[in-house]
Amino acid sequence: GKKFTRVAVWFRRDLRLDDNPALMAALRAGREVVPLFIWAPDEEGVFTPGLCSRWWLHKSLRALSAKLAALGSRLVFFNSKTTKEAIVPFVKENGVQAVFFNHLYDPISLVRDKGIRTLLQGNGVHVESFGADLMYEPWEVLDEQGRAFCTFDSFWEHIVKKMPYEPFMPLPCPVALPKVEDEVKGNRKDLDDLSILADEELETTEHLGEKWTPGSSSAQMVWNKFICEKLAFFKTQKAMVHSDCTSRLSPHLHYGEISVSCLYFVLKKMRLSLASVAGNEQHIQSVDNFVRQLGYREFSRYILFHNPFTHERPLLEHLSAVPWQYDQDLFKCWQQGCTGYPLIDAGMQELWSTGYCHNRLRILVGHFFVKYLNLPWQWGLKYFWDTLIDADLECDSLGWQFLSGCMIDSKPFSYIMDYEAEASKFDPDGKYVKKWLPLLARVPAKYIHKPWSAPPAVLRAAGVDLGVSYPHRVVLMSEVQRSVAYACQVLEQSKTGPAEG
Amino acid sequence: GKKFTRVAVWFRRDLRLDDNPALMAALRAGREVVPLFIWAPDEEGVFTPGLCSRWWLHKSLRALSAKLAALGSRLVFFNSKTTKEAIVPFVKENGVQAVFFNHLYDPISLVRDKGIRTLLQGNGVHVESFGADLMYEPWEVLDEQGRAFCTFDSFWEHIVKKMPYEPFMPLPCPVALPKVEDEVKGNRKDLDDLSILADEELETTEHLGEKWTPGSSSAQMVWNKFICEKLAFFKTQKAMVHSDCTSRLSPHLHYGEISVSCLYFVLKKMRLSLASVAGNEQHIQSVDNFVRQLGYREFSRYILFHNPFTHERPLLEHLSAVPWQYDQDLFKCWQQGCTGYPLIDAGMQELWSTGYCHNRLRILVGHFFVKYLNLPWQWGLKYFWDTLIDADLECDSLGWQFLSGCMIDSKPFSYIMDYEAEASKFDPDGKYVKKWLPLLARVPAKYIHKPWSAPPAVLRAAGVDLGVSYPHRVVLMSEVQRSVAYACQVLEQSKTGPAEG
Ligand SMILES: Cc1cc2nc3c(=O)[nH]c(=O)nc-3n(C[C@H](O)[C@H](O)[C@H](O)COP(=O)(O)OP(=O)(O)OC[C@H]3O[C@@H](n4cnc5c(N)ncnc54)[C@H](O)[C@@H]3O)c2cc1C
Ligand SMILES: Cc1cc2nc3c(=O)[nH]c(=O)nc-3n(C[C@H](O)[C@H](O)[C@H](O)COP(=O)(O)OP(=O)(O)OC[C@H]3O[C@@H](n4cnc5c(N)ncnc54)[C@H](O)[C@@H]3O)c2cc1C
Ligand SMILES: Nc1ncnc2c1ncn2[C@@H]1O[C@H](COP(=O)(O)O)[C@@H](O)[C@H]1O
Ligand SMILES: Nc1ncnc2c1ncn2[C@@H]1O[C@H](COP(=O)(O)O)[C@@H](O)[C@H]1O
Repeated sequence: GKKFTRVAVWFRRDLRLDDNPALMAALRAGREVVPLFIWAPDEEGVFTPGLCSRWWLHKSLRALSAKLAALGSRLVFFNSKTTKEAIVPFVKENGVQAVFFNHLYDPISLVRDKGIRTLLQGNGVHVESFGADLMYEPWEVLDEQGRAFCTFDSFWEHIVKKMPYEPFMPLPCPVALPKVEDEVKGNRKDLDDLSILADEELETTEHLGEKWTPGSSSAQMVWNKFICEKLAFFKTQKAMVHSDCTSRLSPHLHYGEISVSCLYFVLKKMRLSLASVAGNEQHIQSVDNFVRQLGYREFSRYILFHNPFTHERPLLEHLSAVPWQYDQDLFKCWQQGCTGYPLIDAGMQELWSTGYCHNRLRILVGHFFVKYLNLPWQWGLKYFWDTLIDADLECDSLGWQFLSGCMIDSKPFSYIMDYEAEASKFDPDGKYVKKWLPLLARVPAKYIHKPWSAPPAVLRAAGVDLGVSYPHRVVLMSEVQRSVAYACQVLEQSKTGPAEG
Repeated sequence: GKKFTRVAVWFRRDLRLDDNPALMAALRAGREVVPLFIWAPDEEGVFTPGLCSRWWLHKSLRALSAKLAALGSRLVFFNSKTTKEAIVPFVKENGVQAVFFNHLYDPISLVRDKGIRTLLQGNGVHVESFGADLMYEPWEVLDEQGRAFCTFDSFWEHIVKKMPYEPFMPLPCPVALPKVEDEVKGNRKDLDDLSILADEELETTEHLGEKWTPGSSSAQMVWNKFICEKLAFFKTQKAMVHSDCTSRLSPHLHYGEISVSCLYFVLKKMRLSLASVAGNEQHIQSVDNFVRQLGYREFSRYILFHNPFTHERPLLEHLSAVPWQYDQDLFKCWQQGCTGYPLIDAGMQELWSTGYCHNRLRILVGHFFVKYLNLPWQWGLKYFWDTLIDADLECDSLGWQFLSGCMIDSKPFSYIMDYEAEASKFDPDGKYVKKWLPLLARVPAKYIHKPWSAPPAVLRAAGVDLGVSYPHRVVLMSEVQRSVAYACQVLEQSKTGPAEG
C-alpha cells in the first residue's frame, strides 16, 4: 500500500523521466502523481535565463509534457511572481499530501527551495528531496577535516580515489504513470500559456531549431552518437574547435534531460570492456578524460555551493581590485566579432548566431575580453548568460573565474595568452575561421590567424582588404602588455590570502 | 577485327567512362586504346578556368585516372603551350592511327578542335568526333527554314515537340579496357606534374573539399540522391535559396562527369511510371521542370555556337551602348558582400567561400550588379568565371546576357527588380541570410531583408548596429531609378533590331 492518495513532483531542471529519483519516489509513495512546472522568472532576478536558454526550456518542457502524456499523465503549469504563490495554494486546494523534488545548488535555488520546504512542512505536507544532478552531493565530498576542497585537482582526486561508494545507479524509466484527474489544474492551461518566450522572441529565436533539438530523447541520441562516433578520439581531438568532437550535451545537462549518473555508468562499463582487450589505451584515456569534463561540472556546483558568491565576486578576494576599463565600444566590438582577431571574431559570431561555441573558444574569447580588452569578467559572464543556449550559472561562473585568474587553480593574472599560438593549436588549418568568416575563406592557413602579417600579394589573391573586408585589430599586443602590467601592479598592493571555503 | 592497332581518346570535358561515345568508338576500332589529357591553359587566354574550377578539374582527373586504372588502362598526361604541340608529335611517335574525341561548342574550343583535326588528318591519321555533351547538336535544332531559333521558348518547344528522334541512348561503361603499353608516354608523368594548381593555390582552395567531391562516381551519387529526395519537390522548391532543393550537378555537368543523355532517359522512365499512377501530377511537373533546366543548358551552348561572341558582346547589338559606371569601389563592395542588402551580401559571401550559389541568387546579385550598381555585365561574367566552381562559358554567358536585358527573351532594360519582394520570395524566413551573415541571426524574419526599416528597438534586441555590425546600403532605390532611366534614354537613341542567328 501507498502512503499517500495524491502527491506532486515539482520539475525544475530535471526534465526527464528516466533516473528521476523524485519521480520514482513519488510513484512509490502516492496513488496519484501530479507533475508540476512553475515559471517564476522574476524570482531569479538578474539571472533569469537568457533568450536562447528560454527557447530551450520551452522546447524541453514540450518534450517532457509529451512523454508524460504518452505514459498516461500530464504536466500541470503555473506562471507566478514567486514559486510559493503557485505551489502552496495548489497543494492545499488539491489535497496534495506530499511534494517531491530534486536538488538544485545555485544560491538562488537553494534559498527558494528552503523557503518552500519550510512553508509546506508547516502546512503538514510531507516534503522529500533527492540528488539527481550530480554524481555526489557537494556536502559528501570533504577532506579529512570535513572541509571543502579549494582546487579542482584535489576535489577530483578525492572523488576518483577516495569516495567510499559509487554514485547512485540510474533508475529505469517508469513503464506507465497514473492519470492526473481532470480537476487538478495549474493557473496556466498549457505550455504556450506560460509565456516563457514573448511573441517577438519567438521570431528572433526561430533559427535555433536548425541546430538543436531539446528533450531527453534527443539527449539520449546525442549521447549515443557521441560515444559511438567521437568518444574514442576525445582525448586528442577535444580541443579542436572545428572538428565537432565534443558531446554538445551541455544544454541537455543544464536542464537535466539526461542524468550524469547515467553517463557515468555507461562510461564505467565501456571502460571495463575496453580494458579487457589490448590496444585500447587511447580510447580508455579518452573515456577518463571525458569523465573529467563531467568532473568540472561537478566542481562548478561544488564551488558555488560552498562559496555562494562566485557568480558575482572573485573567489580570490584580492582580485576585486583589478582596475578594469569599462569601454562600451570595445565591449560591442567583441560582441559583434569585429576585433580584427579572426578566431575571436569567428567564435563570437558563432556564439551570437547559435548560442554555443566550443569550450576552448570560450576561454579564448573570455581571456581576450579580460586581458586584451581589459573589460570586467562580470560583464562577460552576464553576456554569456544572456547569449549561451547552455547558460548555466555554476559553469559560467567557474569558467569566468578560472580564465580571469580569480581562482587558486588559475594562471596568475599576469599571464597573457599568445593569441597566434593558441589559435594555431585549436584551429590549425583555420577551417573554423573560414567557416564563420567566409570573406577569409581563401586566406592560406599560414596567415589565417594573423592576416595582418600576410604579404599584400597574398591578401590580394585571397580577396581580403584589411580595414575594409576585414577589420584592423582593435588592440595591439604592446597595449595589452602595458595594461596587464598596470593591473598587476595595482593587485600587488592589495593581495590577500585565498578565500575560505 | 579491329581496324587499328593503336588509337587515342582525347579527354577534355567528358571525364567519364560511361556514355562516352568517343571512348566506345575507340574501343571498337582499336586493339590498344590510349586515353589522353592535355593541359594547355594559355590556349584559352582570358578564359583559362578560374581557381575553383581548376581545383575541380584536378580532382576530377584524379578520379578519372583511377577509374581507367581500375579497368586496366591509364591516363596519359601533357602540359603544353598549345594542344597541337602535344598531340601531333605524340600521335606520330607512338604510331597512333586514329584519334577520337567528343565535341565542345564554345568558340575557343571550336577553333582549336578544327585545327587539330586538320593537322592530324593531314598526317594521315583517322579523326572521329562525337556528340556527348548535349541531347542534340546545335546544328540539328533548326526551324523549317533551316535557321537557328532566337528565343528559348521556341528552341525548347521545338525540342520537346518536333524533333523527329530522341537523344542517343546512353552507352554502358566498358567492362574492361586494354592495357596502355609502358612505352606510351605523355610529356608529364602524372597528374600532379601537370601543375593545374600552383602550390599556393593548393593552399587557398583546401576548403572546397569540405563541400564538393568531383568525379563521375560522385556525380552519380549526387544525381541518385537528388532524384530520390528532392526531385519530387523541384517545381515548388527550386527557387528557395535556403532549402538545397536543386541538384548541384553543374560542376559535374561542366566537366562531363555525367551525361545529359543519362539524366534524360532516367527522367523519361521516371515520368512514365509516375504517369501510370494517379496522384503524381506535382511530381510529373517537377520532372518536366527539371528537364527544362537541362534545356537552358542546351540553349546556352546553342546560343554561343550560333553567335560565337556572346561571351563578350550583347546578343542584342544595341545594348552595346549602355553607359555603364566603371566604379571599382562599388565592384569591390559587391564582391565582398557588403552592399547593405542582406541577400546580396549573403550570396556573394557564399559564392566567394564555396564557389557556388543558387541560380536565383546569381540572377539577384547579377541584376543588382547591372541595374543597382550600374556596372558592366562583362565584369560580372568574368568575376563569376573566375570564382564559380561550375564556371562554364556558355552558361555564364547566357545568364549574364539574360539578366542584363541583352536577349530577346530578357525583360526590357528598364526593368528594375523589387529587391524586397524578390528576397522575401526566395528566402521567405531569411534562413539563408541568417546562415551567411551570423550577426543578423536574431533579426526577425519580417525585417531580415530590409534591416534599415526595422524599429531601433528591434535592431537593438537583435544586436544589430547599422553602419557598424552591418553596413548601410551603398545605393538607394532613388539613385537606381535615376541611373536606369538615364541608360534607357541613351539606348533609345541607338536601338537596332535583334541579332541574326
Ligand atoms: C567562460 C566559460 C563559460 C562557460 N559557460 C558555460 C555555461 O554557461 N554552461 C555550460 O554548460 N558550460 C559552460 N562552460 C563550460 C564548457 O565550455 C561547456 O560545458 C562545454 O563547452 C559544452 O560543450 P560540450 O557539451 O560538447 O562539452 P564536452 O567537452 O563534451 O563536455 C561534456 C560535459 O562536461 C561539462 N563540462 C565540460 N567542460 C566544462 C567546464 N570547463 N566547466 C564546467 N563543465 C564542463 C559540460 O556539462 C559538458 O556538457 C563555460 C566555460 C567557459 C570557459
Ligand atoms: C548570371 C548567371 C551565371 C551563371 N553561370 C553559370 C556557370 O558558370 N556554370 C553553370 O553550370 N551554370 C551557370 N548558371 C546557371 C545556373 O545558375 C546553374 O547551372 C545552377 O544554379 C547550378 O545549380 P544546380 O546544378 O543545382 O541546378 P539545377 O536547378 O538542379 O539544374 C540542373 C542543371 O541544369 C542546368 N541549368 C540550370 N539552370 C540553368 C541556367 N539558368 N542556365 C544554364 N543551365 C542551367 C545546369 O547544368 C544545372 O546543373 C548561371 C546562371 C546565371 C543567372
Ligand atoms: N581548475 C580548473 N577550474 C576550472 N576549469 C578548469 C580548471 N582546469 C582546467 N579547466 C578547464 O577544463 C577544460 C579542459 O581541461 P583539461 O581537460 O583538464 O585539459 C578547459 O576548458 C579548462 O578551461
Ligand atoms: N529565356 C531565358 N534565357 C535564359 N535564361 C532564362 C530564360 N528564361 C528563364 N531563364 C532562367 O531559367 C531559370 C528558371 O526559369 P524557369 O524554370 O523557366 O522559371 C532562371 O534561372 C532564369 O534565369
